[in-house]
Amino acid sequence: MTINTPKGFRAAGVAAGIKESGGKDLTLVVNDGPLDVAAGVFTRNKVKAAPVLWSQQVLATGHVKAVVLNSGGANACTGPAGFQDTHATAEHVAATLGIGAIDVAVCSTGLIGARLPMDDLKAGVTAAAAQLAGTEEAGIDAATAVMTTDTVPKYAGSVQDGWALGGFAKGAGMCAPNMATMLSVVTTDAVLARSDADAALRHAVDLTFNALDVDGGTSTNDTVLLLCSGASGKEVPVEEFTARLTELCADLVRQLQADAEGVTKHITITVRGAATAAEADATARLVARDNLCKTAFFGSDPNWGRVAMAVGNAPTEFDPAKLDITINGVAVCVAGGAGEDRSKADLSGRDITVEVDLHAGPGRATVLTTDLSHGYVEENSAYSS
Amino acid sequence: MTINTPKGFRAAGVAAGIKESGGKDLTLVVNDGPLDVAAGVFTRNKVKAAPVLWSQQVLATGHVKAVVLNSGGANACTGPAGFQDTHATAEHVAATLGIGAIDVAVCSTGLIGARLPMDDLKAGVTAAAAQLAGTEEAGIDAATAVMTTDTVPKYAGSVQDGWALGGFAKGAGMCAPNMATMLSVVTTDAVLARSDADAALRHAVDLTFNALDVDGGTSTNDTVLLLCSGASGKEVPVEEFTARLTELCADLVRQLQADAEGVTKHITITVRGAATAAEADATARLVARDNLCKTAFFGSDPNWGRVAMAVGNAPTEFDPAKLDITINGVAVCVAGGAGEDRSKADLSGRDITVEVDLHAGPGRATVLTTDLSHGYVEENSAYSS
Repeated sequence: MTINTPKGFRAAGVAAGIKESGGKDLTLVVNDGPLDVAAGVFTRNKVKAAPVLWSQQVLATGHVKAVVLNSGGANACTGPAGFQDTHATAEHVAATLGIGAIDVAVCSTGLIGARLPMDDLKAGVTAAAAQLAGTEEAGIDAATAVMTTDTVPKYAGSVQDGWALGGFAKGAGMCAPNMATMLSVVTTDAVLARSDADAALRHAVDLTFNALDVDGGTSTNDTVLLLCSGASGKEVPVEEFTARLTELCADLVRQLQADAEGVTKHITITVRGAATAAEADATARLVARDNLCKTAFFGSDPNWGRVAMAVGNAPTEFDPAKLDITINGVAVCVAGGAGEDRSKADLSGRDITVEVDLHAGPGRATVLTTDLSHGYVEENSAYSS
Repeated sequence: MTINTPKGFRAAGVAAGIKESGGKDLTLVVNDGPLDVAAGVFTRNKVKAAPVLWSQQVLATGHVKAVVLNSGGANACTGPAGFQDTHATAEHVAATLGIGAIDVAVCSTGLIGARLPMDDLKAGVTAAAAQLAGTEEAGIDAATAVMTTDTVPKYAGSVQDGWALGGFAKGAGMCAPNMATMLSVVTTDAVLARSDADAALRHAVDLTFNALDVDGGTSTNDTVLLLCSGASGKEVPVEEFTARLTELCADLVRQLQADAEGVTKHITITVRGAATAAEADATARLVARDNLCKTAFFGSDPNWGRVAMAVGNAPTEFDPAKLDITINGVAVCVAGGAGEDRSKADLSGRDITVEVDLHAGPGRATVLTTDLSHGYVEENSAYSS
C-alpha cells in the first residue's frame, strides 16, 4: 500500500534531470478532496532550508492541496534567491493544477548550499502533473523520486473500518529527526478537523520519527506532512486515528532504520529509571550517538563498559552503584559491576536491544539507532551529499 | 625531555603481566621532594573508576609522594571489590617506598568492567620500585607503560629560568576530556603553594586537555595530576608558572591528537560570535562530534553544508542569514550562502582549520578533533577496549 491507498489522492514521480544520475527526482502529490485539511512538523535546526520556511507558511493556513518534493538538492543555505526558487516552484505547481500557490507545500533534499536547476525542475513539474494517477505504481514512483542515499523506496498504508492511511518517507543519513524526519508525506481519507489532524501528527511523530537517531544529524530540511482528503466520508475519533497513524509512522521509521547508511545492525536502546522521560531520552541518545558503542555493535561485541561510559555522561543524577545494563536479554552489568558473562550475549544477528536502568526515577524512553560501519564511513567520505 | 626532567623525581615503567600482549603496563612516579605539593583534576563522568574515587581522596589532602598507574584494565564498574583493589595497590606502593598509602595516587586505564590481576600488579610495583631512576630513559619507560591503543608514548618537558616542567599523557580514543584527559602526570621542581598549583592546573587543563574532543567519549578514568618537588629552590610567580604549564599541556594534547585512533586529519574548529564562550564551545563540539563532518574531513571534502547543519543545532540563538564558514582560509559560506568556490579549499594535507562566525555575540572557543576514518571503525570494532 502506498500514499495513493486513501481515496482522494493522486501522485507521480518523474526524472526531471535534477539528479546527476538521471534517476527519478521529482514527486507530486495532489489531494483532490473534498477536504484539504493538513498538518506538518518541521526541523528544529536553526539553519532551515528555503522549502521548510515556505511550507511552514503554507501549513499555518491548515490547508494543503498539493505537495511537490525534489531530491538532488536541499535548497538550504541558498539565501533569498533560494527562497524565490521555492516560491517559483509553488507558483508553477499552482498554475499547472489550477490552485493557489499558498495551497502548495514544497520539500527538497540533497546537497546543502547549491541552487536548484529551475528550468529542469519546472519541466519536471509539468511532466509529473501529466502523469498524476491514483494507482499503486504511481504511489511507488512518488516514494522513489524522493530518494537520495536511500537504497529502497519506503512506503506503507493501512485500510480498515472504512478509512485508509498511506505514506512514504526518505532518509538514510543526517538522520536524527527533531519534530520530523528527513521527508515524509502521509495521506488519509478520514474526515478530520484541523486541530485533530495536528494533534494526531505531533503525537505520532514524537513516538516514531523523533525516536530514530542514526547519526545525531538533525537536517536542515526535515518535514513530515499529513494530508486529509476526507474522501471516505468516515468521521474517525481522534484517538482511533492517532493510534493508526502512529502505527503507520512506526512502519515507515522501521524502513528508515533498515536502510540507514552503512547499517548492519538495528539497535533499540531503552533507558528506564531516569528522573524524567526527557532525561531518559537524552541518556539513550548518548548511547545511540557514541561512536565507541556504535563500533562495538558493528563488531558484534557486547562491550557494556562503553555503554556505562556513555551513560555516565547523562544529565540525570543517578547512583553508579545501581546501574544495570542488559544486552540482548543478558544482564551483563548488574548494580554497577559485571553481571552475567558477556560472552552469553550473542550479537551476531541483525537486531540488538540495549536496556539501561538508572534506578533514579520513573522516566523511560526508547531510541532506535544503527551501528557505525565501514560502509557508513565509505558512503559519507567518498562523495559530497 | 620527560617527567624526570624536573629535579626531585624518579620514575619507572615495567611489564607486570596485566596486558595480554606482555608489554609494559605499570608505571611508578616518585616525588623525592623537598615539597610534595600536588593538584589533580578528574573526569566529570558520573560513572567513576575506583582509582579516580581513591585519588580524589588523596588529592583532597593537597599532597602526593607517589603515583602508580597501570594500563591493561580500567578498574571501572568493579564495585567495592574494585575499590579495595585500588586501596591495596596504594598500600603496597606505600609499604614498598616507606610512605603512607594516603600519599599515593592511583590511575588505571584499559577495559571497563574487569577486575585487575592483583598478584601480577603488586609484583610489578615491587619490580618498578627497584628500577626507579631519574633518567630520560626511565621517563620514557614511564610514558610507555600507560599506553593502551596509543601507538607512541607522549611526553614533553621544558627547562628555563632555573626551573623545569615535565610530563606524559596517554589517550587515543574514548577521548573527550571533561576536566581532564585519559591519564596525564605533570611534574615540576618549582616552589609552589598548594593553592597556586591547583589554580594553575585548572587553568591549563581548561585551555588544553579540555579543548580536545576525539569522539565525545568522556572516560570513566580521566585524571591529570601535577606534582611539585620544589627541588629547584625557585619560587615561581603563579602567572609565569601557569603560562609554561599551559604550554606543556598543549604540547601533550597535540601528541594525543596526532595519535588518536584511526586519525588521518588534525582538525581545529574555532567558533566566534556566540553569545558566550560556553555556547561557542558547545557549538564547536557539535561540529567536532558530527560523523558527517568527520567523514567529509576524512574524504578531504570541504562540505560546508554539513558544518552548517551541525551548527544549526547549536544552543546559541543566531541569524542563519549571517552565518560565515571558512575552511582552510577559504570563505566557503558567506552570509548563510555559498561563498568562494569550495574546490579552492584544499584539504588534502593533514591539518584542517574550520572557522565559524555566528555574528551573535562575543563568545569564542576552539576545539581540536580528528576525522572519522576506516581505521577508527576497524580499531574500535575489531576488539574490546
